[in-house]
Amino acid sequence: MDINTRVLSGFMELTPHEQVEFDRIKSIIESTYHQFGFTSLDTPVIERSEVLLAKGGSETDQQIYFVTNGIAAKDANALGLRFDLTIPLARYVAEHFNDITFPFRRCHIGKVYRGERAQKGRYREFYQCDIDVVGRNGLDIRYDAEMPSIIYQIFRKLDIGKFTIRVNNRKILNGLFEELAISASPSEVLRVIDKAEKISAEKLIESFMEIGLDQKQIDGLSKFMGIKGDVADVLKDLADLGMTNPQFCEGVSELKTVTDTMAQMGVDKDYFAIDISIARGLAYYTGTVYETILDSSPVGSICSGGRYDNLAENYTSEKLPGVGISIGLTRLFWQLRENGLIKPSGKSVSDVIILTETECNLPTAFKAAASLREVGMNVDIFYEELTMKKKFQYVTKMNPPFVVVVRMDGAGQEVISLQYEENDEFKKDIVEMDELVRKVAGK
Amino acid sequence: MDINTRVLSGFMELTPHEQVEFDRIKSIIESTYHQFGFTSLDTPVIERSEVLLAKGGSETDQQIYFVTNGIAAKDANALGLRFDLTIPLARYVAEHFNDITFPFRRCHIGKVYRGERAQKGRYREFYQCDIDVVGRNGLDIRYDAEMPSIIYQIFRKLDIGKFTIRVNNRKILNGLFEELAISASPSEVLRVIDKAEKISAEKLIESFMEIGLDQKQIDGLSKFMGIKGDVADVLKDLADLGMTNPQFCEGVSELKTVTDTMAQMGVDKDYFAIDISIARGLAYYTGTVYETILDSSPVGSICSGGRYDNLAENYTSEKLPGVGISIGLTRLFWQLRENGLIKPSGKSVSDVIILTETECNLPTAFKAAASLREVGMNVDIFYEELTMKKKFQYVTKMNPPFVVVVRMDGAGQEVISLQYEENDEFKKDIVEMDELVRKVAGK
Repeated sequence: MDINTRVLSGFMELTPHEQVEFDRIKSIIESTYHQFGFTSLDTPVIERSEVLLAKGGSETDQQIYFVTNGIAAKDANALGLRFDLTIPLARYVAEHFNDITFPFRRCHIGKVYRGERAQKGRYREFYQCDIDVVGRNGLDIRYDAEMPSIIYQIFRKLDIGKFTIRVNNRKILNGLFEELAISASPSEVLRVIDKAEKISAEKLIESFMEIGLDQKQIDGLSKFMGIKGDVADVLKDLADLGMTNPQFCEGVSELKTVTDTMAQMGVDKDYFAIDISIARGLAYYTGTVYETILDSSPVGSICSGGRYDNLAENYTSEKLPGVGISIGLTRLFWQLRENGLIKPSGKSVSDVIILTETECNLPTAFKAAASLREVGMNVDIFYEELTMKKKFQYVTKMNPPFVVVVRMDGAGQEVISLQYEENDEFKKDIVEMDELVRKVAGK
Repeated sequence: MDINTRVLSGFMELTPHEQVEFDRIKSIIESTYHQFGFTSLDTPVIERSEVLLAKGGSETDQQIYFVTNGIAAKDANALGLRFDLTIPLARYVAEHFNDITFPFRRCHIGKVYRGERAQKGRYREFYQCDIDVVGRNGLDIRYDAEMPSIIYQIFRKLDIGKFTIRVNNRKILNGLFEELAISASPSEVLRVIDKAEKISAEKLIESFMEIGLDQKQIDGLSKFMGIKGDVADVLKDLADLGMTNPQFCEGVSELKTVTDTMAQMGVDKDYFAIDISIARGLAYYTGTVYETILDSSPVGSICSGGRYDNLAENYTSEKLPGVGISIGLTRLFWQLRENGLIKPSGKSVSDVIILTETECNLPTAFKAAASLREVGMNVDIFYEELTMKKKFQYVTKMNPPFVVVVRMDGAGQEVISLQYEENDEFKKDIVEMDELVRKVAGK
């Protein structure tokens, strides 16, 4: 009995009622992905370490869980648990190249593992919900516009309050650095820009000088970084900078196509913005980048992604540009719960619980259950032989929308009693079988 | 480029078309579980080794994958991957006892890991699809009848041909051993009985004598094991044995209740049978036991389970009897594919692919896509700017039920062309927007 049954630190485990809500969110994400033509993949959670480590040098390398087994995985470091769904996608596309039609729209909702230091809201096992469109040799820029429009649909359906999808294009930053002849590595400059929101203007200038920028470069950068406003304003201000660098101009043009197309796709303009300061991961993204912020809880992005030049360069010589986004579902759920943005309904998975007075009423209970399941209802029959009072204690705790009691009336006739709440009022009707199905399915 | 991207031995990885079929099966299993009032759980894949090893002594102990990580899991043997979903359930119920309403109906569809020796049709990572009803101190026998009736619903919906659910009750065997005063351990006798189908009658008697049974005992056992036939026959023959052992009689009575109730629940009598030779796991099950056999491929059970006295005795002092079944989905899928019982449809996840003649047609494409998604359709818009011929190559490979082309007609008017097959005939209609939705949704 002294075995520790608590959930491991950094792992999420929900109560049954919470799980219903978690699964509802997961299911909205998945069905929306499908509605945009993304086909599900499901790859092994265990990968060869050489696959996981192929890129090398990222901080996630330290976070890999290695797996060993006396029979199947003897070498201590040969196999590990995936830490994202992008590497498995890259490996999959390289391996199954001939089974795939490009552009390849795939979605993947699965658990990933990172042995991070324990921290509030950080999980060591968490769900990622990814979509990517992978092209062969090229991929039209309009796929970049579709990504945020999918995100928009999902978060509107989830009804979690106002959010903002921030869009940018890495070519703008890269072109700017070229035009300003900044010799510091882009990664250093981006690291400073990334913290621009969090530090004072003076501190920002200081940070720029520390990495070797001169006054003219800082002025150029500052003018650039001062650009704010709605999408049209930002695009106009970017044009007004008068930059001639081809990469910069291409970035602005792509950003205009992406934001124009998003509007055409029906994304409400209150829900997206250009944010020229976001860069996302340095080594990976090469064009459009996205972040999504809950306005009520602007700490951390709940959905990020972007355009990359080559998905699987470590695994194949095929050139595979793509664009993708990822929702960190476990973290999102935690954040929504912390902020009171989801309130588990307290309802059971069952729409109907059926009680019987005695076992003689079971055949009718079975018929009722079958008819209700036929029309898609979830039905729980309670079999314990207890007093009716005790049977109702189960119902009270489970809290289904409908209760059916099959019993004998005063005349010794079997009746079906349907009980439910309507407009805060408790209702109790004696119904025929077909009436039962009609009433329950109709609400 | 010399990184090995092949899927690991003992792991299943599907093509996109196969995955669509796999997910369809998974989804039927899950929704049927929900229709019977089972609430989903999702526990961590990683568990403390002390939890996994609490029972001890089973062959699965050798098969555990241990996980290590420099930061989060330094001790090499402290954590492991779950090898079934029953231990996580037991730990969960012990840990969250106060959040649970009993009888607790839970379903869990998840991956489990066993480092078994590589073998055809055996997987090291595989899906189990479990349901259990866990009672507190007691659990009505009718829950035992519901399990096979759920299995019946699932396999009928999956349309995988004729199958037979074999039912038995462990008390019958235990009572028989008592009455025959067999001193050999029941596990030894059961091991012989388990292979009865595979060996000759002489070999069977020999095996019995090897474990110390005398002629009278072998006669008793043989008479018992000769009982075959339909449910009513077997129950009658069991009664006619004239056994007086209370456990034996209780087992027969429970078996009668279970099979009677299954019939009341609508399970076609052609689809279930009593098989007095099945025992399932020795240490675990204590009453009703089940196996399910595909008649076309009678090797191995595709769904098994049974009644147990105490789910979580290693983790809590609460007495928690229950009954459960498990579908080994990965193995089932492999078996169905091997036997040609599933033919991946070759269809994409998308119901509709939309092509545009030029980018000028995109706004109409977006409107059509939004309207079709509104009514639950999955819609893929193709954005690559290629010749129409090349665009149609994508359509041909993806093979959706419907193709929509937005283009200009001879008069320079934008039209929507809907293309589909009907009765093996290729159809091509110019349609209005509302007609498009009606036509596609109506089929």
